[in-house]
Amino acid sequence: MTTNRLCNLIGIKYPIIQAPMNWITGADLAAAVSNAGGLGTIGPNAGADTVTTDVDETAERLRRQIRKVKGLTDKPFAVNFPIGIEGVEQSEGGRKFSEKCVRVGLEEGVPIAITSVGPPQVYTRLLKDAGVTVLHAVSTANQARKAEEIGVDAVVCEGYEGGGHKATTEMATMTLIPLAANAVRIPIIAAGGIADARGMLAALALGADGVYVGTRFIATHECDAHPNVKNAVVQASDVCTISVDKWMVAGRDLKSPFTDKYLELKKTGASMAELWDFISTHTMYMGLVQGDTDWGEVPCGQSAAMVGQIVSAARVIEELINELPSALEQLRNRIPAD
Amino acid sequence: MTTNRLCNLIGIKYPIIQAPMNWITGADLAAAVSNAGGLGTIGPNAGADTVTTDVDETAERLRRQIRKVKGLTDKPFAVNFPIGIEGVEQSEGGRKFSEKCVRVGLEEGVPIAITSVGPPQVYTRLLKDAGVTVLHAVSTANQARKAEEIGVDAVVCEGYEGGGHKATTEMATMTLIPLAANAVRIPIIAAGGIADARGMLAALALGADGVYVGTRFIATHECDAHPNVKNAVVQASDVCTISVDKWMVAGRDLKSPFTDKYLELKKTGASMAELWDFISTHTMYMGLVQGDTDWGEVPCGQSAAMVGQIVSAARVIEELINELPSALEQLRNRIPAD
Repeated sequence: MTTNRLCNLIGIKYPIIQAPMNWITGADLAAAVSNAGGLGTIGPNAGADTVTTDVDETAERLRRQIRKVKGLTDKPFAVNFPIGIEGVEQSEGGRKFSEKCVRVGLEEGVPIAITSVGPPQVYTRLLKDAGVTVLHAVSTANQARKAEEIGVDAVVCEGYEGGGHKATTEMATMTLIPLAANAVRIPIIAAGGIADARGMLAALALGADGVYVGTRFIATHECDAHPNVKNAVVQASDVCTISVDKWMVAGRDLKSPFTDKYLELKKTGASMAELWDFISTHTMYMGLVQGDTDWGEVPCGQSAAMVGQIVSAARVIEELINELPSALEQLRNRIPAD
Repeated sequence: MTTNRLCNLIGIKYPIIQAPMNWITGADLAAAVSNAGGLGTIGPNAGADTVTTDVDETAERLRRQIRKVKGLTDKPFAVNFPIGIEGVEQSEGGRKFSEKCVRVGLEEGVPIAITSVGPPQVYTRLLKDAGVTVLHAVSTANQARKAEEIGVDAVVCEGYEGGGHKATTEMATMTLIPLAANAVRIPIIAAGGIADARGMLAALALGADGVYVGTRFIATHECDAHPNVKNAVVQASDVCTISVDKWMVAGRDLKSPFTDKYLELKKTGASMAELWDFISTHTMYMGLVQGDTDWGEVPCGQSAAMVGQIVSAARVIEELINELPSALEQLRNRIPAD
């Protein structure tokens, strides 16, 4: 028996959600996390061995991933549906893509949807009517309130320290979580900066019901990231990431020649066309899948500096849970006696 | 008896340090905090009723503030000495100023120094030799390690969500604290985003020995901020601050026509001279002391959104401490039973 609302809502043992990370969170990682008692999540471009702008190809690839994860676990799992901006037709983020992918998700009986990067009203009703539990990602307390009004089951509150984050509002986990907890009654999942039991304990202290862990799972055997990426995360220390932009491809990346060059281009007044050309020839696919950690983009959170070893996904869950009691004991010792 | 290392080091009841905030944290606030069991801190321009570039006038003003606080409390208190950049001669941040102020601090027997905005080797030995306990403010784990090597007694680790923050590294409290805790053995004080018991509990969970609270103390009776500033903090909600710059006057401010205009000037390619002219005619003194919250600069942390009432400084300490047990109880309920 647990008193944790998120565990009860989703039907999981531990309130730990493996955050979707675009190309590199496929069925293997999702199943490993779910089998270990957390909630695994399939990312929107999971299983891709090429970059495509074909809607049907993308949707069918997702279908194969969903079928695969169902073969690997009988526990709940989630699929991330980036809602996207209406009219945008890129392979990542387009509304045409999300419509097709959501339809495939419904056909395949996905139990939990994590919607993100777009307004919650687009798919929440459709998903809820089909019996899907809907988690929606937000960056501010007001967005959390709106998502609750729309009817989502829980909100993922993404702090600025997290990897691949899109918001220009820059609210950190430390302030976003208590503000969201003041604003809504539905469960809150804290995202951004959480890689160990101390971070998990802090998130729960701030008012979160569970945690959303991305970066720590990059350095796992089951993650689809190129080995260069896993090694780069393990080797990263201290200030190892940077928020690369505020208006076009906002996101926190591992620092690299790519981020240096991009920021230099911006600083020296490059045109939007030049910046776009640079971005579209130095992609996440190059970084995450092909392993060019110098010139491809590698989205990554500040917590990479805390990751020291490539382990199994189950081991990540075990460490988070097993180290909670000692972290709690240390916390209690720091509280002054009155 | 407490097991809290920071309380033992400084000789305080509660591990809560009132952060110095330049013009608005004078003897009245510092004494109220220290009398309530925390550590009050006098800011570098406390007690100013005008802007001066006179070194002696600044130092003598500080002497009056120190004498005043000693008359108001027999508990430990701190003085903030911004170390400043060698060769810079502005009234805020110049090395000439800090030399004179540190000398006055030593003459007046200041028990605790908080050094900031500069390298820790400049004054640590001098202060330690005189028996002063030295706390040094840093923004990265590597800086914390260097400060420990230099011999400071504790490090204040300032997260990006905090007000008036200077670092371009943007490490958030959520990641900075555990990384610093991994890097050093001396006590760690968490700064940035902490305004209530949930934040304090989270900071202690992350590995901090105590907390550094600034923004919450703006909205206190004893704070020297103009009433307009206190009201602005109380009224602020959700995303209410912005980090205004990365290369000249880096700092987190309450959003205002001032920050809008400044960011617009930057975006439209204003020269350094134009930007400097704008900054120097729209000062913190105008904002904080004269109460022009539209066109003066008002440094402020993201946690302003959590501040709902102007109360006494003692009440702030009481609420932080009295609400810890229930925050801890709620935290325990969220931890899954195994």
